[in-house]
Amino acid sequence: MKNPIIKLKNQPRISASYSVVGHLEKQGPLGELFDEYSDNDKFGKNTWEKAESEMQLRAVKGAIKKSGLKEYDIDLLLAGDLLNQCVGSNYATTNFNIPYLGIYGACSTCAEGLGLGACLVDAQTIDSCCAVTSSHYCSSERQFRFPLEYGGQRAPTAQWTATGSGAFVISNEGNVKITEVLFGKAIDKGITDINNMGAAMAPSAIDTIVRYFEKSEHSPDYFDKIITGDLGFEGSEILKDLLLGYGIDIRKNHDDCGLMLFDKEKQDVHAGGSGCGCSAVVMASHILPLLEQGKLGDVLFLGTGALMSPMTLFQGGSIPAICHLVHLSSR
Amino acid sequence: MKNPIIKLKNQPRISASYSVVGHLEKQGPLGELFDEYSDNDKFGKNTWEKAESEMQLRAVKGAIKKSGLKEYDIDLLLAGDLLNQCVGSNYATTNFNIPYLGIYGACSTCAEGLGLGACLVDAQTIDSCCAVTSSHYCSSERQFRFPLEYGGQRAPTAQWTATGSGAFVISNEGNVKITEVLFGKAIDKGITDINNMGAAMAPSAIDTIVRYFEKSEHSPDYFDKIITGDLGFEGSEILKDLLLGYGIDIRKNHDDCGLMLFDKEKQDVHAGGSGCGCSAVVMASHILPLLEQGKLGDVLFLGTGALMSPMTLFQGGSIPAICHLVHLSSR
Repeated sequence: MKNPIIKLKNQPRISASYSVVGHLEKQGPLGELFDEYSDNDKFGKNTWEKAESEMQLRAVKGAIKKSGLKEYDIDLLLAGDLLNQCVGSNYATTNFNIPYLGIYGACSTCAEGLGLGACLVDAQTIDSCCAVTSSHYCSSERQFRFPLEYGGQRAPTAQWTATGSGAFVISNEGNVKITEVLFGKAIDKGITDINNMGAAMAPSAIDTIVRYFEKSEHSPDYFDKIITGDLGFEGSEILKDLLLGYGIDIRKNHDDCGLMLFDKEKQDVHAGGSGCGCSAVVMASHILPLLEQGKLGDVLFLGTGALMSPMTLFQGGSIPAICHLVHLSSR
Repeated sequence: MKNPIIKLKNQPRISASYSVVGHLEKQGPLGELFDEYSDNDKFGKNTWEKAESEMQLRAVKGAIKKSGLKEYDIDLLLAGDLLNQCVGSNYATTNFNIPYLGIYGACSTCAEGLGLGACLVDAQTIDSCCAVTSSHYCSSERQFRFPLEYGGQRAPTAQWTATGSGAFVISNEGNVKITEVLFGKAIDKGITDINNMGAAMAPSAIDTIVRYFEKSEHSPDYFDKIITGDLGFEGSEILKDLLLGYGIDIRKNHDDCGLMLFDKEKQDVHAGGSGCGCSAVVMASHILPLLEQGKLGDVLFLGTGALMSPMTLFQGGSIPAICHLVHLSSR
């Protein structure tokens, strides 16, 4: 069997990251760490969709500025979001004079962008890129579940789509390296409950983690953190339990972006955060600074995405999921 | 100014391609060239969405088989379609034990997949990949315009979403090389007419073509064909006219996949074909064989995509567009 882990010889760097969030995220445990927020989640716009694009715009501009590069220096934008036809990204990217590749992996898109961008920079196909993702609670609820005005009751296993956008500049400068990438497979275990994305996504995380440790020279203990984004409470418990059956114990060093973003006791978000923006802002504001400061050495970041569509669920379809892995290191 | 054209030193090859189409495409001028078709566009499935996934499944299997490789040999699937949350691709890819990256560029997705796959194979990040896209007239009409049952009248400038899927295996074997890639920028010229995608997309094609010939060592005459996909009649005329203003004359060697797929006189498709599947099946069944046989030497393939969403159009938004360029050569 071939080794599916892509080892990045030149170890491209995450040169800068920038996070933009809504009011609920600002009130959460990581509130102080975000670069920008909006009190009313509108970011000065008159539709939720435009607000989402505005977040991406600010995140990309912020990340490029922090990196010390100019827009002119960025060879490629890798952008994605949860909205139909990825319009959050489509409108945001019209503001930049930079080539743009649209990517889609639901909530795994942040990891997809980081992994793909790292491969392209590592190979010197491009010198630098900016990977960005976003989600907005109000645009997502309307699209995937119910319009907010309907006031539907949320199930205990439901996750709360984060309002936020995180952008990352990948180039050859900086002290956080991307050393390995493992792209996920689409996994369908027959879950049909639109209110339990965690259960749909956990099997894809298991598949990717098992494939990684089968071929990696590292054991789970090697990593300071193994971070999924975003399985929430439900999915995280399933993941940790089922991995034990494969002889993989990540109970000590596992964390989940959906669990870090909100305070389960004080904030009414049920099973935790989710959405393309959730892992993006947690990684951008919290994990990357810890890596930059050397407080974390090696981190496995596993972006998990539920590849669901309301249309096919109405037709009785199940929810495939995917999980992309990125190995970050400051060592 | 940096040269944005990505030159592929190792010149990865399109080793095989495979096309699956619906009944109207089968009746068109290229009918005899397709690998597979369905008389009723259902491909044995009970929803249009499942039919679309089935086309992708058959296209990928067919392309891998033609290439002489095994599923096991393919390192990556690059898949995309027009459906919400890209479910055509999501469900299709669950059938393969191959890592999957979701990509989105509306009708430009075929070129995005070819370009991105070629970059990754060229850099030896992966040894081989399969790029696949699809569209289905019935699933797309419902999603973007009206359900078929409504019987809405079509505007003369409207394009007909092709029912089809085309897959391409990219590796180091074969005699059709991908020598250059130029990724497009998201361009928004304020077009808001959902029935005139050609007008929305033409400016993005102009932007990419002008940027290419500014930096290329080749002139437009160098190419046996400069093929857009899919501007249709309206967009093709706009493109050729406006390019003259930049001193670029492609009137002799331009063709458009949306114009090649259907017979304007005999088939009631208005401004021509469109959709992720249109350029994919025309390239897979018609253009690539001509390159393989040496009947075409150098071809510029420009995938154009209208990055539109019904939601944002209802809100008064405009239609951004993008155009990715791939230079194919059998010389």
